Parts: sequence; structure tokens; C-alpha cells
Amino acid sequence: MNADHNMKLFALSSNPELAQKIGDYLEIPLGKLTSKQFSDGEILAHAEESVRDRDVFIIQSTSTPVNDNLWELMIMIDACKRASVRSVSAVIPYFGYARQDRTAASRQPITAKVVADNLVAAGLDRVLTLDLHAVQVQGFFDIPVDNLFTVPLFAEYYHEMGLEGDDVVVVAPKNSGIKRARSLAEYLESPIAIVDYEDDDQKRENGYIIGNVKDKKVILIDDILNTARTFTNAAAVAKDAGAKEIFAVASHGLFSETAAALLDASSIQEILVTDSVKNDNPKPQRVKYLSAAEHLGSAIERIHEGRPVSPLFAYEKNQN
Amino acid sequence: MNADHNMKLFALSSNPELAQKIGDYLEIPLGKLTSKQFSDGEILAHAEESVRDRDVFIIQSTSTPVNDNLWELMIMIDACKRASVRSVSAVIPYFGYARQDRTAASRQPITAKVVADNLVAAGLDRVLTLDLHAVQVQGFFDIPVDNLFTVPLFAEYYHEMGLEGDDVVVVAPKNSGIKRARSLAEYLESPIAIVDYEDDDQKRENGYIIGNVKDKKVILIDDILNTARTFTNAAAVAKDAGAKEIFAVASHGLFSETAAALLDASSIQEILVTDSVKNDNPKPQRVKYLSAAEHLGSAIERIHEGRPVSPLFAYEKNQN
Amino acid sequence: MNADHNMKLFALSSNPELAQKIGDYLEIPLGKLTSKQFSDGEILAHAEESVRDRDVFIIQSTSTPVNDNLWELMIMIDACKRASVRSVSAVIPYFGYARQDRTAASRQPITAKVVADNLVAAGLDRVLTLDLHAVQVQGFFDIPVDNLFTVPLFAEYYHEMGLEGDDVVVVAPKNSGIKRARSLAEYLESPIAIVDYEDDDQKRENGYIIGNVKDKKVILIDDILNTARTFTNAAAVAKDAGAKEIFAVASHGLFSETAAALLDASSIQEILVTDSVKNDNPKPQRVKYLSAAEHLGSAIERIHEGRPVSPLFAYEKNQN
Amino acid sequence: MNADHNMKLFALSSNPELAQKIGDYLEIPLGKLTSKQFSDGEILAHAEESVRDRDVFIIQSTSTPVNDNLWELMIMIDACKRASVRSVSAVIPYFGYARQDRTAASRQPITAKVVADNLVAAGLDRVLTLDLHAVQVQGFFDIPVDNLFTVPLFAEYYHEMGLEGDDVVVVAPKNSGIKRARSLAEYLESPIAIVDYEDDDQKRENGYIIGNVKDKKVILIDDILNTARTFTNAAAVAKDAGAKEIFAVASHGLFSETAAALLDASSIQEILVTDSVKNDNPKPQRVKYLSAAEHLGSAIERIHEGRPVSPLFAYEKNQN
Amino acid sequence: MNADHNMKLFALSSNPELAQKIGDYLEIPLGKLTSKQFSDGEILAHAEESVRDRDVFIIQSTSTPVNDNLWELMIMIDACKRASVRSVSAVIPYFGYARQDRTAASRQPITAKVVADNLVAAGLDRVLTLDLHAVQVQGFFDIPVDNLFTVPLFAEYYHEMGLEGDDVVVVAPKNSGIKRARSLAEYLESPIAIVDYEDDDQKRENGYIIGNVKDKKVILIDDILNTARTFTNAAAVAKDAGAKEIFAVASHGLFSETAAALLDASSIQEILVTDSVKNDNPKPQRVKYLSAAEHLGSAIERIHEGRPVSPLFAYEKNQN
Amino acid sequence: MNADHNMKLFALSSNPELAQKIGDYLEIPLGKLTSKQFSDGEILAHAEESVRDRDVFIIQSTSTPVNDNLWELMIMIDACKRASVRSVSAVIPYFGYARQDRTAASRQPITAKVVADNLVAAGLDRVLTLDLHAVQVQGFFDIPVDNLFTVPLFAEYYHEMGLEGDDVVVVAPKNSGIKRARSLAEYLESPIAIVDYEDDDQKRENGYIIGNVKDKKVILIDDILNTARTFTNAAAVAKDAGAKEIFAVASHGLFSETAAALLDASSIQEILVTDSVKNDNPKPQRVKYLSAAEHLGSAIERIHEGRPVSPLFAYEKNQN
Repeated sequence: MNADHNMKLFALSSNPELAQKIGDYLEIPLGKLTSKQFSDGEILAHAEESVRDRDVFIIQSTSTPVNDNLWELMIMIDACKRASVRSVSAVIPYFGYARQDRTAASRQPITAKVVADNLVAAGLDRVLTLDLHAVQVQGFFDIPVDNLFTVPLFAEYYHEMGLEGDDVVVVAPKNSGIKRARSLAEYLESPIAIVDYEDDDQKRENGYIIGNVKDKKVILIDDILNTARTFTNAAAVAKDAGAKEIFAVASHGLFSETAAALLDASSIQEILVTDSVKNDNPKPQRVKYLSAAEHLGSAIERIHEGRPVSPLFAYEKNQN
Repeated sequence: MNADHNMKLFALSSNPELAQKIGDYLEIPLGKLTSKQFSDGEILAHAEESVRDRDVFIIQSTSTPVNDNLWELMIMIDACKRASVRSVSAVIPYFGYARQDRTAASRQPITAKVVADNLVAAGLDRVLTLDLHAVQVQGFFDIPVDNLFTVPLFAEYYHEMGLEGDDVVVVAPKNSGIKRARSLAEYLESPIAIVDYEDDDQKRENGYIIGNVKDKKVILIDDILNTARTFTNAAAVAKDAGAKEIFAVASHGLFSETAAALLDASSIQEILVTDSVKNDNPKPQRVKYLSAAEHLGSAIERIHEGRPVSPLFAYEKNQN
Repeated sequence: MNADHNMKLFALSSNPELAQKIGDYLEIPLGKLTSKQFSDGEILAHAEESVRDRDVFIIQSTSTPVNDNLWELMIMIDACKRASVRSVSAVIPYFGYARQDRTAASRQPITAKVVADNLVAAGLDRVLTLDLHAVQVQGFFDIPVDNLFTVPLFAEYYHEMGLEGDDVVVVAPKNSGIKRARSLAEYLESPIAIVDYEDDDQKRENGYIIGNVKDKKVILIDDILNTARTFTNAAAVAKDAGAKEIFAVASHGLFSETAAALLDASSIQEILVTDSVKNDNPKPQRVKYLSAAEHLGSAIERIHEGRPVSPLFAYEKNQN
Repeated sequence: MNADHNMKLFALSSNPELAQKIGDYLEIPLGKLTSKQFSDGEILAHAEESVRDRDVFIIQSTSTPVNDNLWELMIMIDACKRASVRSVSAVIPYFGYARQDRTAASRQPITAKVVADNLVAAGLDRVLTLDLHAVQVQGFFDIPVDNLFTVPLFAEYYHEMGLEGDDVVVVAPKNSGIKRARSLAEYLESPIAIVDYEDDDQKRENGYIIGNVKDKKVILIDDILNTARTFTNAAAVAKDAGAKEIFAVASHGLFSETAAALLDASSIQEILVTDSVKNDNPKPQRVKYLSAAEHLGSAIERIHEGRPVSPLFAYEKNQN
Repeated sequence: MNADHNMKLFALSSNPELAQKIGDYLEIPLGKLTSKQFSDGEILAHAEESVRDRDVFIIQSTSTPVNDNLWELMIMIDACKRASVRSVSAVIPYFGYARQDRTAASRQPITAKVVADNLVAAGLDRVLTLDLHAVQVQGFFDIPVDNLFTVPLFAEYYHEMGLEGDDVVVVAPKNSGIKRARSLAEYLESPIAIVDYEDDDQKRENGYIIGNVKDKKVILIDDILNTARTFTNAAAVAKDAGAKEIFAVASHGLFSETAAALLDASSIQEILVTDSVKNDNPKPQRVKYLSAAEHLGSAIERIHEGRPVSPLFAYEKNQN
Repeated sequence: MNADHNMKLFALSSNPELAQKIGDYLEIPLGKLTSKQFSDGEILAHAEESVRDRDVFIIQSTSTPVNDNLWELMIMIDACKRASVRSVSAVIPYFGYARQDRTAASRQPITAKVVADNLVAAGLDRVLTLDLHAVQVQGFFDIPVDNLFTVPLFAEYYHEMGLEGDDVVVVAPKNSGIKRARSLAEYLESPIAIVDYEDDDQKRENGYIIGNVKDKKVILIDDILNTARTFTNAAAVAKDAGAKEIFAVASHGLFSETAAALLDASSIQEILVTDSVKNDNPKPQRVKYLSAAEHLGSAIERIHEGRPVSPLFAYEKNQN
């Protein structure tokens, strides 16, 4: 660690609780800053203490209101750069627009690339994020991107609950999510299954399960829980196929629209998410939050001290 | 005009009325597009008709909600570029964040530069805008920026009303606005005056007039009418100094917060603005809209046909 | 079409047969060029006819020898750019290094991004490619990338063979390929299944099928057929699970190492691939080539004439 | 301060006296360099001592001969960058071409942006300058620009002379300079006035004063004193309006053409300028130089030590 | 030729005679422009007629005053770009700073690269130049650079004079110029020789000839004639070695310092140069100018019409 | 030296022996890395130990197989950059493609510039190389390039052999190599001569010597020894002209095609080369290798410690 290059940690508006927990873990007070939105909607954000020649980390999830949060982040990056920081890193626990990562139909944009280009144009030097929707989004950047995985956190949690082995089936609630299911299944030494739909485009009609969940405990896993329809549809399909108990886990809990009501009405026993997203949407009664603060804080520490981040990429269950 | 390179005109969400008027002026139908905002706030925008090898003009004021409108614009630019347009121009009647054009205090950002860099990073080829807050913002871009002036429009309007000559004083309502006052005054062949404040930083306390408005008709002129406090304070100062009648004119009417009420309660007889900004804020009773559609449409036509835009920069009063 | 901007088509070394077929389809002779490799391995490539102010299309698969083929392509792009072409497009039927699209382990490169950055640095204006391994690679470019799908070609072929409906199961031979299986299945109105492995990292041990293939005709689908181990392992698993007949289809047939022998020894009845890759590796006896020349040629024509490429993205089976 | 990253200070040709004073303030000898102009006008400039891994500061006003001075600066930046400096900062006390900061008329350049782009293209990392003509020029750069103000220096000087309070009027000698007048007036607790012209374009005909200077001591303030016509015209206007005594102050004294003679013949009692510009033009008899060396040196020190520069932006009069 | 994209030709300050000849050859009037230098040395240059969507060619030798001429060129490029030209090409008959093309000693700049980077940063699309000092300078640009050779012009001239065959020796007046000598010798079917110096660094002491010039007609050839010392020293060496008659030819005649006097006092019978450089230096009595106007004009025509420039690279002597 | 920024040294595939010698000189173990080539020819290269915040030096000659070696280097650079190194330097003892440094004929590429652009696009910060074919290639980069000379090494070697003074003639074996001959001749205090060809284009027909080698010891010098035809042709010409003994020296020994046989059959007594290139081509019997390891190692040390590299550029013969 460069003793002469002290770190500064700033929290923008999206998720101050998580930022505070990261600061507590690192035993560093959050930096003083101004961020205000004027009557015409324009944002002004900047540090209120000197950042000259410091390594600055800015914590901001680009969750709803995603466009405001992105501008607040870009403005703060520009302010830091013009104030002569040594480097500026964005800690983005939830990376918005990540699903617009390809031209899904004719003439569509690749907004995740626009986000990447804009952050870099604003002067960003490095990104730390959590479970990107598609890992290829790392390649949208030419700066280092550390993408921490959440599956080790979840595996440790379920291991401690005793949810593992052949009695459990890890289920991808839609056919594109099979990689995460496979990864969790390997930690838990359980088989996997997939919920597929006959008509897959947008509508997802006529779901059925591929694989065997009869009399099993099912863990549905996805990266983003938005309207909860993917989970509740999959839970219904799993139930019909004979599942005994149903759990759901997602890295990022947005709970948009009627998500809470849908989940409360479903047969899912527990919905596990990290605290990457903070908003005022109603939450389901059976939600359980697992903080990513220590995971992110440890990565920041390692980045700042020039130590490898890779040990955070796996969880060694045998150590427990 | 390149007969083989047809133009396409698209209107984003901020100001469809003005866009429609521009299309009507050009006798070109607005292009079909999709623009929707999902439940998590993310925007998807793209053309619904082929734009391959076309010169595309996208009309979008970056007024409130400014961050959403900027993202909608950047996303549409990216979508057009990836769909192989020949060129993409942004028509930005109101250019938001233009007042954050310098580091006003220590460690502050220059957000107008971030806007410029991001639009260019998204693939923009050209900008057409209306009365930039600071003309230097043109220099934030390395692509061509045509900045149309509104003063000729206003001069023509007041000339037709007979508001000109020594009976009129054009007043800058704060000391930074003197250039616009000078410009309108030369068209109207009237003198100018300035409202100054003893303590000028943000607060603007103890206003007084520099110059003579006694028994004169006063035209207060500014570029952006936001909360209307600048105008109503200046009107009170002018009234105290003996002004006979008071008019106000601004290029961009935002009417934020209590602007309408303040203006209704003021001694200003008429508030003239262009239709560059469309929003749902209450409007003052004595507001008068002057459309910039013909001005902008004519510039688009000239740009597309490769004819000079400069004739639009002046108004020849003698022709009337 | 800009009558005054004629197109030039050049074929580099990787796949002259496919290039000739594209030229035949377009009724355009291939441009004359020099490309030689000196005794020290260095390549010199350039046009032998004027390309000044022309729209140049260079056809090159970046298959084995991938590094030579990439340099030949970059050198030709540079030569064209310095010779003042109007635009230069690369037609890359097989896009090498596409699987290195993320940092798969600590400190790994994202070579697909290096490829993209280098092609753009050399002066490339546009890419036309065929069934990218990950669609997100489009976002590695800031220039337009048209990624043609092969599934419609394959669907038409199997439809004409009568391989469709409930008697058929489309099988992803590894769990990451489910999207292609789903897409072909929708064209054929057939169900899908997946071959999964208990230990998935590199080794792929203990394969088993998720879904039901008993007494069904199975079509295994993947994008790249390299060593053929994925296909032959999956075929064995499917056979064990009771599959009646087994077909395999891949967009790109590399046939590396012992692929031909493995496939000849397998229970796969027919291996269908496009002619995107040309090399001297032994080919399996039951291979069937489907040319992508018309598909690519039609896209080039549409790009050059400024017409939408999107009609090529789907195949309308009802028209047959 | 990074003890292991020593600073090097180099003085180019424009203003060696100021550079020496800065070196004296910092107690650092000026670095040894070669800078020569050949018989064909070409310049060769480079360090004569190792700069590898050092933080280099190059002092150069881009005053007359502005084009030579800019090239000498760009050449020295390139030489430093290729010699592997850690960072290179330009200390530009007078920033030439700053007035060409917008397209003042059709088809005009924005030369200040060309200057900014070229300095950055040559490899510059940071700028330190003094009283930019338009603060927006900071935004022409994407690197940090510290723009020191001169008004605090001038305020302290006049305060010590007793020139303050209601007996003094700070006058902007043309209508665009009102911001500087306002700023100095707040320090001196004096009112302001403006010299305006009926025909303002270039010619500046028929000047008159807006505000009251009768029987007052007037301080005319501007940023650049070039031909002195602005000041001497304004002095005549102020005299006609009854001013008792007239002082003039400018940040940058160029004294072009007949400036000295005009000022000697005027009623201005003292012309105060900083030493930002050094040239051989005749100087007026009543000129007074205030050195900016300490101001600039202190900023260099703070930049190098990673301490905030902001304390230099204000002058606290109460401390005297 | 694109009938819809008309060409505009502008001449900056360095060489209006050559520009006029080029315009005459092309039968195109030179465009109207403003270029003035203010009292502080700053330049303002811009077109006085519309250039929107035109292909603009700017003719400017970057000869003495090289720094002024480069800035005039960069400013004009920026002005054209902001005025929305279709493309801007620089015709640079003499490319200054071309000899600073490598780090000749420790910590030296590569100024030719700074020139290239700055021209491109200003918005340049293409360069047309004449006999670059080092052909590698083409590679300093990523835009097309057409470098016309002068040797074919000179060969034609000497052929018509009957100066060819074994009676003539083409001599490189210093050891670095052997390539040009070889090239001219091949056209003239004559042998070559070299003037070498025992101490070669800068000083060039103790010259002697390598090769045989006894009783021969010698043609000394170089690219740049600056102070003429290289030529006059070489002429003395050749004379001592028995040369019968001595001619000298250079692409670019600068005639700096005492060049005219040195040449007048030398035994050189005729000094042949092109008109690439125009200045007020004294010229030797036996100078002969060969105009490059037709050569450059023909290249401009070919570039604009999209025809190959390569036919201009050689001279077919047999056609005479 | 920054004690807190430790250096890492990695050797890629081209020349592990030289890399090991450099490591030995520096007393630093070579870093552990993976570099493998898959069955389809694609390369995967990355560090196997943490490089976060380290100064990484990658040793790789871009000799045959040049395209593979370049990709291995670019991939390793990308991997290092994404793994958050502090800086990455390439040590390229032999810089391939350096001879394609200009458009040698119409429409040819400048591949050396493509190499430079690609290395920089991949994230390279600095280059250390040995005797570039053309020193202008330094200017193809905007990052620092240290180009070490080999002539001082060779001069020391011949000095120790007693090969110096008037008894020796240093001969450029083709007319473009005269600069290296001149440089070695000055160290050895010997005269020079040149082998010229009447028809110089590619073919090199009818060689003859310019200068006097009769009864002298001749040292032929070139930068790259590829097919050896240049050397063996020149040796034959020198022999015919009466040379007594013939030596040959080149910085880079490729020994392509029949080089070894040609040299064995020639009258050249000893062929001296550095160990910059390692390959399996047959070597001539009379080859002598001089290691550049100490030269390169010393430069790496100086770069890392921030000390000047320039002392390595010369050899002081008097010290021996």
C-alpha cells in the first residue's frame, strides 16, 4: 500500500446504507460531498473535501432512478478528475442497463456499451461491480473491471441452512440462467433443472420443467429480481412438477411493480437477495437480505493495497 | 441537396409539439420509433423504420426530466449509429446543464462538457441548438454546432408591436446578461440598463439599477426563465426606479417552482418565450409563446442541403 | 444505391471458395490484390486496382491460422484506408477468438475485445459476421456490426427433410447452448433438452440429459464444432437416454484434432455445417455443407444499397 | 508529497524573469534545457538533464510571438513525454488565443479549443493559468485546469492604498467585463458602473457610462490590456461623466501598438498589471507591475504536494 | 467525380503564387477567405463563402515563418470543420519540421509527429505533399497521405537538357541522401557517387568523395536546400576530385542565411528547385525554378474524382 | 526507485534464453505465466501471479512466427491491463514488420504503424527495443520508445579484436545502410565504402563498389540478416574489388531460407549477430553471437529506477 496515497470513499444517493456498511468494514469515514438536484432536475455533485492526488472510490448503484443515478455518478467522476485525483474508481453494486447488452432486435441500441463509454469518457479508471447480468459486459470497458460473484455468498448461506446434496435441485427459472444454477449446484453438490417455455420470445407461454424436481427442495436462482414474474411463474411450474419446498435467490432485488404481492401470493418460502439495491418499493414478507458490504469492502481494500482480488471469487466451503 | 441521401426526422419525448411543427414546416413526416421506459426506469429507444445510410435528425430538448431526456437521446443516437445511418444530428432546442459550464467553485464539475463528451461518445455528428447559455459551450464539442440566436425573432416581434427607439430601455436583469440586452437594443435602437446586486454570490441581495429607466418602457431579457425570481426581482427594481411599463422575454421558459405565481403577481405585462421547452408546470397568465419551429426547420433544411445556415443568424428589420 | 460510389469486393486467404460464391451471387468480380508471406513470416497485402473513394468489402474468416488471418485482415484494412477508400467493411464469416469474451479466470485477457479494438484502430468502418459465439461481442465495437443468424438456414433445411414437430427434440449439447436450441426448436415446433455435466469446469465429467429424448429424433445444435468432443459426448449421452436417431448441426465447422475420427465413430447420422470455415483438416464422412454465400451476399447488397438487413434475420417457413 | 517523485521546473522563452521568481519562491533551481530556433524558423527544445519519472512543470506564457511560443511549449511537452516523465504540467500565466473561444461569426474557428486539443495531443497532463479571458475555456480541456484569480491580488493592493468604499466606483470599461468589476467591487465594498457603446460590434462608437461616477475615484478593470484603446476610451467617458481620479488595472499587460503613448496621454493615474507577460513593447510611464510569482509558485507547490489549491482563490482582507 | 460534392480550393499565406497556378491548372477560382494577424500576433483565418458539405483543399507550405504558417493552417482546418465541410485536405508542398522525425539525441522531441497529431486533432482528413524528407513521416498519420515525388520532374528536365548517361554522375552531397541520387541515376542511366565526411556529427569535417567523378558532369541532389552549405561543400569536394561541370537540384529551396552568396561564389552552374517554397530571402543568380503546380493540381483532381494518384509517381521518359 | 512499486518480468514464447539472461542480470526471477495455443490456433496468455499495481515488463521479440508472437504480446498486455497493473512495458529485442514503414508502392500498407497502433490500443505504456530498422518508427508511437543501439557493442568487440584504423573499411552492403556503416567507422576510425546496384528496385542487379577496399579488411554491416543474400552478394563484390578479409555484422540474425548455406559458401570469415532472435533455422558455421542481455537489462533497470537510459547509447572506447 502506498502510504502516501490515501484513499477517499464517497457515497452517492442510490444506496447510502450499503455505502455506510462498506465504510464501517473499511474503518474509513465516508467523504463529505454535496449532491443536490435543482428545481429543473439538473444535478450538481462534488466533493467537499480535498481529493487532490487521492485514490477515490465512489459508491453508486445505478438502480432506479437509473438515469439520475448515472448522471450523478458521471458528474461526480468529472468533478473528481478536474480536482486532480490520482485515480477514480466506481463501486457499482447494481449495474443498470446491463440487460441491453446486444442488439436484441433490428436497429436496437446496446445501452450497456453506452453506459461503459460514458463512464470512461467522464474519466473513470476502474469499476468494481457485483454479479453482472452478462460477464461479457466487462469487455465493453478497456479499464479494469472486477466483477465479484454472489454465488459463493449464497452457497455459504444455504450450506449453513443444510440446504444441499441430492435432496435439493437448483433450478434456472428461465433457460438463459442455467450458468448460475450450475455454479450454485456445484457448491451444494446438487443436480439442476430448467424451466423452459414453448414460446420464448418476451411472452414466455406454456412453461414446463426440464429435469426432475419431484419431492425435492427447489432453489430458484436468477441475477435480477425485477417484477418477480420469472420467479413466481417458475415456482408454479415447479410446484406442478411435484417440488416439495421452493426457495428463490437473486443477486439484485428491485421488486418493481407488483413484485411483493406476487411473491407473497406464491409458494416460495424465502426470497434471498443482497442489499445491492435500495428503493422504496414494497418488499415481500418472506424476503431475506444478505449484505454484500464485506465482500465489496474487502475488494476495495485489496484493490487499494495492490493485492489480488481473486480470493474473493470463490468460497471454500470446507473451511466452515 | 443529395437526392440520394434522404433525411429522416425523429421526435423523442421532450417536446413532440415543437417536433411536429418542425416536421410540418419541412413537409416531412416524423419517423416511426419506439421509446419506452420500463418499470425499473430504464429506457429503450430505437427507430421502427430503416435508417440505413440516411441523414437522421433527432429532436430532443434536454429539459426536465433532464437526465431521462439525455439518456433517451444518447440511446437513440447509439441505436441509429449501430443501424448504419449516414449521419446523426441532434436538434436540441433547449440545451440542459448549459449553466454548469465552468468550475464555479473548488472541485466542481463542468457538466456541460460531460454532456458534450457523452453525446459525441454515443456517436453524434452534429448539433443544432437555440441560444446556448454561454456561446463557449460550442467549443466543448469538436463536431459542428449551429447555435441559432433568438434575439432576431424577438426583435421582429417587438418591432411589430412598436416597442422600439428611445422610449424603450432594454434591461439585463442581472449583470451577466448584458450581451443579450445589448444585442436586442441594437435591433430596437434603444439604450440599455442593468440590474446589479451588491452581494452577487448566489443570494443577489440589495438590487439596484445601473442606468436610467425612469418613465420608460422596459424590456427585461434573459436566456433561461426558470424560477422567475431573476425577472420578478428585476421588475421590482425597475418599477422602483420609475419604469412605466415592463415586458420580459426569455428564450427558454421552464417556469419551475412558483414561477407562474410570481409572474402573475408581478408588474410584468407580458412574458415572451419560445416553445423550446414543453412541460406541465403552471404557466403565468400573461405568457406569450413564439414558435422556434420555422427557425429550426429552416436550419435543418439548410444543413441537409449543404447551404449556409448563417442567413438565419440575423434579422433584417428593414425588410419589413 | 449510390451509383457514384461503386463497391469493391476482395477475398483474403482464409476462404477463397466462399468469397467466390459471394462474388458470383452479387455478380461482381473479386478485386485483384497481392497478398504474400515473406520468408520471415511477415505478410504484405494490398489492392492491385484503385480503391479510391470506393466502398470496399474484405472477406476473411479469422479461422486457423487465426493470427496470420487477423494480421492479413488488419494490413489490408490499413492499405485500403491509406489508399483513400470511402469505407471499408470486413465480412468475417467465422469470427475467431470470440470465446475469449470475458475474464474467465483471474488475470485473463478479453481477447475478443483486443480483436475488436485492433480492427477499429486499423480503420475498419463496419463488420458483417455470422452467428457470433456471444451476441454481446457486437457491443465490443462502436461501429455497426451485422450479425447474421444461421438458425433460419438450418430450420429451412430440416423442415425440408421433414425433421420437425413432436417427434424431434432439439438438444443443447452443453448447458451454455440452450439459446440456440430454443431458437431452432421454435422454428421446428419441437421440444428441447440439455446435456448437463456434474462437474462443469473445463472437464465436463459425468454427463446426463435433462429432458426427455427417449425414442425421439435428436438434433444436437452448437455454434462452433472444434474437436467434436462436445457433440460426440452429447450423442453418447442421448443414445444412452434412448434417442432413436441423432443429427448434429453447427454454424462453424473447424474439425480440429481428431474431430473427423470421433464423428465417424459416433452414432451421429449427419453433421450439418456452413462453409464459413475452410481448412485442410480431415472431414467426417457424414458431413453436409450448407453454403452461407447467398445469406452473406444478400446482406452485402443490402448494406451497400442502404436497405435494411433485418429481413435476413428470420426465415418464414410458411412461405415454403 | 511523494518524496520519491521529485519535481522539475523548466522555463521556456516567453518570460524568464517570472520563471526565475517562481523558482526562487519554490527554492528550486530552474532545469537546464536547450531551446533554439534554426535559420528556417523551426524550434528545437528539450531538457538537458534527466526527467525520467519526474513531475515536470513548464513555465510559458503564450504571448507574442504567440505561435512560436505555443510550438516551443508543444515541442517541449513532446520531448518530456518521450523522455518518460511521470507527469507534465504547463504553467501558462498568459493564455493566448483565449478570446477566440466561440464562433463569433459564420464559419469562424474556435482557436482556444484548437490550442487545448493540441496541448493535450502533445501529452499535457495539467494546466495552471492565471485569469482566463473566459472561465469556460477550462471546459475545453478534459485534464485538470487550475485557473488562479488575480482580483484578490488587486484587491489587496488597492486596500493597502486605501482605495475602497463608497468613494470608489469600479468600472467595467466595456459591457462584457462586468463580472470582474463586480468581483473587485465586492472586495472593496464599492459600487460598480459600466461603459457601454451604442454600436457595439468591433467599432465601439458613441460610448457613455451606465451608473454614476461623478466626483468618484474610478478603477477601470479588464483582463487583457492590449492596444489600451478600451481603457483610454473608457477613461475619457468616465472623465466626461465627472470622475475625479482614474485608475486602471488588468491581469495581462500586452501594450501592443501605441498602447504606451495612448496611456501616457490619458487621464489614467496608474496602470496596474501583473508580470504574466514579458515583451519589448514600450511601456507607459505610470505602469505598476505586481508579481504573480508567489501566487503561481504557491499553486505549483500545492499541486505537487497534493494539497488543495482553493485557498489561493480568495483573499481575506480582514487578515490585514 | 461526385457532381453533387463540389470542391473548394483555398490558399493561405505561405505561397499564393503556387496556389494561384494550381487553381489555374484546375480552372477553379481560389475561394474567398479572411486571414489576418492581430497586433498581439494571434491569427484569425476562415472562409468567406459557404463550405458546407464541400470537399475543401487548403494550400499551405509550412515554410518560414513555420510556426505562424502551421497555426494559420490548423485554425483554417478548425474553421472549416466547424462550418460543416464534407472533408478537408491539406496541400502542403513543403512540409516543415520533417527533419525532426526521430529522437536524434537523448530527450529530444519528434516534432514531425507533433505536427501530424495536431493537424489530425484539428480535423484534417487527408494530406497531399511533395517529396517528404523521410517517407516514414507518412506513417506518423493515420489518414491518407499522398507524397508526390519530384525526381520524375527533375529527370524529365535533365533529359531534355541532354544531361544523362555515362557522362553524368549523380552525387549525394551527404551520405544520408543516397536514395534520391540512386533514383535520379536510374532515370538518367548514370552512375552515382557520395560525398562523405570523416566526422559526420553535425560538423561534417574532412569531406571526400566515394566513387569516381573525374571529368564527369556532376548533378548534386538533395531534398531541402537551406543554408546551401551541404551543396557548396560537396561542390568543392567534387571539383577537387576532378568534376568537369557541377549542377545542383533540390525539391525545396529555402535559401536561408547566406545561401545565395555561397551559391553565387560556388562552382555550381545551375541550381534547380521547385516553387514549393516562397520567401523573401535573396536568391542565387543561377537559380532555376520548375513549377510543381501541374503535378499538385493533377493530384488534387485525381483525389477529388476518386481516380488513382499513382500515375503521378513515375515519369515515362520514353514518351518524349 | 519506488520501493513500493515492485517490478515483474515476464518472458513470452519467442526467446526464453535471452529473457532468462536478462532476468539473471537483473537478479529477478521471471514471473510465472500461462501461454498456450489451442488446437484452433488461438492463444491464451496471462500471468499466474498477482500483477496488481506492479510495473510489468514483457520480453518478446516479434520474430518468426511474427503474427503469433504479436498476438501473444497483445493478449498478454490486455491481460495485464485488466489485472490492474501500474504500467506495462514491452521489451522487443527484434521489432518485426519494421521494414514496412512507408507506402513503398501505390496502395501499400504501413504495417509498422499498424503494429504500433495495436500495441497502444491493447494498453501498452512503453517500448524498449534494439536497433530499429528505421529510427522514425519511434515516431509511430505516442508513448516513450527507448531504442538501444548495437553499434557500440560491435565497436567494442572489433576494437578488442584489433579490427580498427585505416587497415579496415566499413562497408554498407546496400546503399540504404550507409548510416550504420558511418557510425561504426567513426568508432573504429576507419573509412567507409558502399555496395551499390545499377538496378536497385528489389532485384539489385549489377553490383559494384563505391569507394576503395583494395587490400583492406572489410566489415560489412547491416541491421537485419534475413536470407543473407545482401551480405553474400556484397562480399562477392568486395572480393572482386580486392578486399583482403571480409567480416559481417548484423543486429538481428534471422537466417531465413538458405542463409546458412549461402554464408558457409561465402568468403565471409565471421558473421557477428546479437541474440535478439531465436529460431530453429540452420545457422552458418562461422556465426558468433554477442548477447544483448546486459544492454537490455541495464536499460530496464534504469527505466524502473527513473534514471536516464542515455548512457547506454554510446560506448566509450577509451575506457578500455
